[in-house]
Amino acid sequence: MAQLLRVQNFCISSDGIAAGENQTLERPFGDVEPGELFTWAGATASWPMRTDPGGSRGLDDHFTRDYARNIGAEIMGRNKFGPQRGPWPEDGWRGWWGDEPPFRTPVFVMTHHERPSFTLSDTTFHFVGGEPAEVLAQAREAARGKDVRLGGGVTTVREFLDADLVDTLHVVVAPLTFGSGLRLWDSPDDLLDRFHLEVVPSPSGVTHHLFWRR
Amino acid sequence: MAQLLRVQNFCISSDGIAAGENQTLERPFGDVEPGELFTWAGATASWPMRTDPGGSRGLDDHFTRDYARNIGAEIMGRNKFGPQRGPWPEDGWRGWWGDEPPFRTPVFVMTHHERPSFTLSDTTFHFVGGEPAEVLAQAREAARGKDVRLGGGVTTVREFLDADLVDTLHVVVAPLTFGSGLRLWDSPDDLLDRFHLEVVPSPSGVTHHLFWRR
Repeated sequence: MAQLLRVQNFCISSDGIAAGENQTLERPFGDVEPGELFTWAGATASWPMRTDPGGSRGLDDHFTRDYARNIGAEIMGRNKFGPQRGPWPEDGWRGWWGDEPPFRTPVFVMTHHERPSFTLSDTTFHFVGGEPAEVLAQAREAARGKDVRLGGGVTTVREFLDADLVDTLHVVVAPLTFGSGLRLWDSPDDLLDRFHLEVVPSPSGVTHHLFWRR
Repeated sequence: MAQLLRVQNFCISSDGIAAGENQTLERPFGDVEPGELFTWAGATASWPMRTDPGGSRGLDDHFTRDYARNIGAEIMGRNKFGPQRGPWPEDGWRGWWGDEPPFRTPVFVMTHHERPSFTLSDTTFHFVGGEPAEVLAQAREAARGKDVRLGGGVTTVREFLDADLVDTLHVVVAPLTFGSGLRLWDSPDDLLDRFHLEVVPSPSGVTHHLFWRR
């Protein structure tokens, strides 16, 4: 089986925006309020951060449970990991996710600034420079035959799309508009020259967009 | 996590029929021609019997790839395993699936007639008697913490539904009618007293029905 690079459960507003400008420690999504972006996922039985039993097991749950299936590594941009810019400050920051990050694989954080790797529970964060293709090669090796997830944020997803390295994308469009911020696309049609697309409305109100290479 | 009993990718016609009467060696689905029931699945990248690369990676593929996710054992009725009735003849029959059955777990075949277990590649078939709850207990133990798939046929699915042992069902309704045969339901509404239901039309023409316990 081919080792795919997969974007999974990537959430945007109906005007294509995944996050706002002006990210801070307190506001990982900057000037936009992300809560409603992820409501659909938090309601499912397989949501990785779920702490109580219950949750739905319908269509949306199929997507939250597919998040980890056959994934052996994640790649993320520095701004998904944290709000710092430039050389790493000695602030003890170890990501937004606490002592039990939901990735449970090696994670490759793209940065121009060196920093030692560290491990939290089942997740090890590595900090790597280089072009998308070079980072992908490292992640593929770490994934030991499994697929690699491209975790975001939006700038990183666009960078890998521009380099034509993405095999499948699952983008969830939530029924809200942000007006301004970091935009994935003007329209999903932007990708149709390279990808098949299926558009699947969910009873929860979000619309799943499933892309795979032509 | 709870150990679920899951029906996955169970295909029926729009009039609720999964198979015909008069099963034979040559016609596992008896008097109905099943080809079109499974066309949607055969077109996907993750179809377990796929021998060439390619295939779609849209909605239908999410269901074919979920077929094996977190499954540790399967239960099937004797008529899913073969067309024989009564005491097992010495006919060398080892199931419909050749040397590489797609289950890759222990499989518990329900029968009133004893027969030694045997292994084909990653699949071991056990032949067990007893009530559904007893068979489920055996399969749960063999699944080592993973879920158990209830594979069918339709009589077996109904038997486990009647005993209220099924946690989730994924039923695929194909756009064809058979008129007569072995029927899963008169209408999906038959199950709404005990299950939530989401109905998800696929671009391929089938309609996925997702049930989970209330």
